[in-house]
Amino acid sequence: MRITDIIEKKRDGRELSTEEINFFIDGLCSGNIYEYQASALLMAIYIRGLNSRETADLTAAMAGSGETVDLSEIPGIKVDKHSTGGVGDKTTLVIGPIVAACGVPVAKMSGRGLGHTGGTIDKLESVRGFRTSLTKEEFIMNVKEIGIAISGQTGNLAPADKLLYALRDVTATISSVPLIASSVMSKKLASGSDRIVLDVKTGSGAFMKTLEDSVRLAEEMVSIGELTGRKTVAVITDMDTPLGNCIGNALEVKEAMEILKGNGPEDLKAVCFELAARMLELGDKGDISACRELVKNSIRSGNALKKFGELAARQGAEFEPWDERAMPGASVRHIVSAPREGYIASMRAELVGKASMLLGAGRKTKDGPLDHSAGIVLLKKTGGYVKKGEEIAELHTSSRQLLPEAEAMLIQAYEIRAEAPATRPLILAYADESGVIRY
Amino acid sequence: MRITDIIEKKRDGRELSTEEINFFIDGLCSGNIYEYQASALLMAIYIRGLNSRETADLTAAMAGSGETVDLSEIPGIKVDKHSTGGVGDKTTLVIGPIVAACGVPVAKMSGRGLGHTGGTIDKLESVRGFRTSLTKEEFIMNVKEIGIAISGQTGNLAPADKLLYALRDVTATISSVPLIASSVMSKKLASGSDRIVLDVKTGSGAFMKTLEDSVRLAEEMVSIGELTGRKTVAVITDMDTPLGNCIGNALEVKEAMEILKGNGPEDLKAVCFELAARMLELGDKGDISACRELVKNSIRSGNALKKFGELAARQGAEFEPWDERAMPGASVRHIVSAPREGYIASMRAELVGKASMLLGAGRKTKDGPLDHSAGIVLLKKTGGYVKKGEEIAELHTSSRQLLPEAEAMLIQAYEIRAEAPATRPLILAYADESGVIRY
Repeated sequence: MRITDIIEKKRDGRELSTEEINFFIDGLCSGNIYEYQASALLMAIYIRGLNSRETADLTAAMAGSGETVDLSEIPGIKVDKHSTGGVGDKTTLVIGPIVAACGVPVAKMSGRGLGHTGGTIDKLESVRGFRTSLTKEEFIMNVKEIGIAISGQTGNLAPADKLLYALRDVTATISSVPLIASSVMSKKLASGSDRIVLDVKTGSGAFMKTLEDSVRLAEEMVSIGELTGRKTVAVITDMDTPLGNCIGNALEVKEAMEILKGNGPEDLKAVCFELAARMLELGDKGDISACRELVKNSIRSGNALKKFGELAARQGAEFEPWDERAMPGASVRHIVSAPREGYIASMRAELVGKASMLLGAGRKTKDGPLDHSAGIVLLKKTGGYVKKGEEIAELHTSSRQLLPEAEAMLIQAYEIRAEAPATRPLILAYADESGVIRY
Repeated sequence: MRITDIIEKKRDGRELSTEEINFFIDGLCSGNIYEYQASALLMAIYIRGLNSRETADLTAAMAGSGETVDLSEIPGIKVDKHSTGGVGDKTTLVIGPIVAACGVPVAKMSGRGLGHTGGTIDKLESVRGFRTSLTKEEFIMNVKEIGIAISGQTGNLAPADKLLYALRDVTATISSVPLIASSVMSKKLASGSDRIVLDVKTGSGAFMKTLEDSVRLAEEMVSIGELTGRKTVAVITDMDTPLGNCIGNALEVKEAMEILKGNGPEDLKAVCFELAARMLELGDKGDISACRELVKNSIRSGNALKKFGELAARQGAEFEPWDERAMPGASVRHIVSAPREGYIASMRAELVGKASMLLGAGRKTKDGPLDHSAGIVLLKKTGGYVKKGEEIAELHTSSRQLLPEAEAMLIQAYEIRAEAPATRPLILAYADESGVIRY
């Protein structure tokens, strides 16, 4: 088999066999196939596409390119959740404890912040003492003993995906549905869960800007799950507006705890509850209505909040996470005022995320430092009416110098108009093996 | 300007600006653009295409990426000739002396063998003492003094083309008309001639297998010439069957001399005379009929043969090239017989070329050795009728061990059938700025 023949085949729009896809991924990892050959093939795939079978084969090959996590020691159905990423997306912090409290084991591997979006691991590390680097043994033991563990990646999962992602980033081949879908799903497959709930974000703060593209991505990932024997469902949720009111690591942990206490903003609550219910449904805890009830009960009873406390204690937190001393507070706080009167017609969620990064909530370089206390509290969001000078947000940071640029960017993120905007549902669609339902 | 934006543009089928194409070629040569980015762009170009303006811009950028030859010291119109390559193609050895004898200066840079096709420089080096590495000064002086010089490339011409060609070779992006056209023409532009005659080969032994593809390539190159101010015409000639009867370096020089003496095979004669006439026409020596007469006269008068002798002497040949001692003869000669009776319906010219390489006429590695005496004399070609056991070819080599594989391959190259094949013209089409004429 020769890589040039494989590239030629896809260049001409023909279907690649399982063997050819495996040959490509093996060669890429062993260095027998050069990056310039991989990027030529990626471009051919970008333009010509992959069918569902090819996409599933690519995913399986990437998942098998490195270590895989074996969760078979943990009894019960292991359900994973993955979000395609958005601004203010702290759903894992809420859903993990809820689902664990309802008796479905949560063995969650999460990532750090990427671009304008934060990462669960960075958020958890704002809790003093919280350890996110668990060994494989600790990780499994914790899930077995308290029903939940959240850790950074243990081991070298799907290295082929890392290689391909780095190449796609510099060759304009990122925004391809089969390539995105296989990238996401390869890591999920390698992480060892039995079933997967996907939160596919759509809108200005998401990777997929249109509902149509988001639905296509969701369908592709559901299909990969089906073809690789891991039942997968997808919930498509709005990311035109940041989720919840808080952006930034410690601020987001606090907001997540509010939801677990039964308070917190309605949009965040709705998305978290729906995703948690879908995870319970996949965990065979009953039909979706019954699972929605279970979720509400876990909050009402305080069990979900208690589970979060257990998780934090087990992973080294020095204080209970709702203790004031558990997390850093920002030394500098600054109120942003509305530049004019009107309805907030829309928000550029991506700019909100970038403003939060500017305040210190994100890294400038891959391994750079991060200010856990930095971020933004949104006091007004899309649909709200503001008078000129009214408070719309509060900036949190450790350095006054960072304020002007962040403030200017945040103001840019608010589009204020005379007319009230049309509302759109927060949960836009649902996809599983039997098809797509749009709400 | 960012290369990823340029790749994205072509990926989506949009037109690249002159500045963007220059940015790409500059970055490629300086190392600011990586090979994996170049190969992604090449694949996007392969699939999406380039329009005539983009192709001409790419050609000009590649031509300008290294040294360029300045022929302005040589009086008169300098006309170059280029063949897209075929088996038994020794036309330069015939045409150069004819054109020079008719008073149009020939400043010809040629290459070495590539794949299954030979190279003019290798052929000339089979003449004992013939030097093909001239300095730029010698090269120009010789053209000024005797009207002709044939040399390997002086200086680093079109290095961007070398980089791109090497990448295309390993990324399945060779067979793209705009990429082939720009590659050929970039070297012609850098070589400094005023006008260009292209011999575009078509058929089983050529790069372009179909007449349609060959015409497209010809049109593209004519258009590049027009847009870059170098008048270019193209003659499309048959390469289903090897040209002439001899393949291999010394054998081809001998056959070329036969033509210059007024003898030799008709197919070779016809192609050489037509190309020479087109060169004279571009050299302002009259209309095409007048130029065809000039060509015939140069042979009849012996002037063309004399010019070849002058060229050889000037470039160091130890004997007159028609002296028996001038060139090596093969120590081993072997007759190949027809495996059955019938008409030679077609020949796989590429296999004939490969068989000749196996006998020693080509290099196994880029800088490997070469046996100037090795090659094949075809005694029967397409259209001929043979009895079983009749002599069809003679193999020349220095090692008996090389015979079996080469013989088997050559026999495979002959397709013998009961019916006589249809004949097709040797010169199939002609293209210039006003369009294409098919014969």
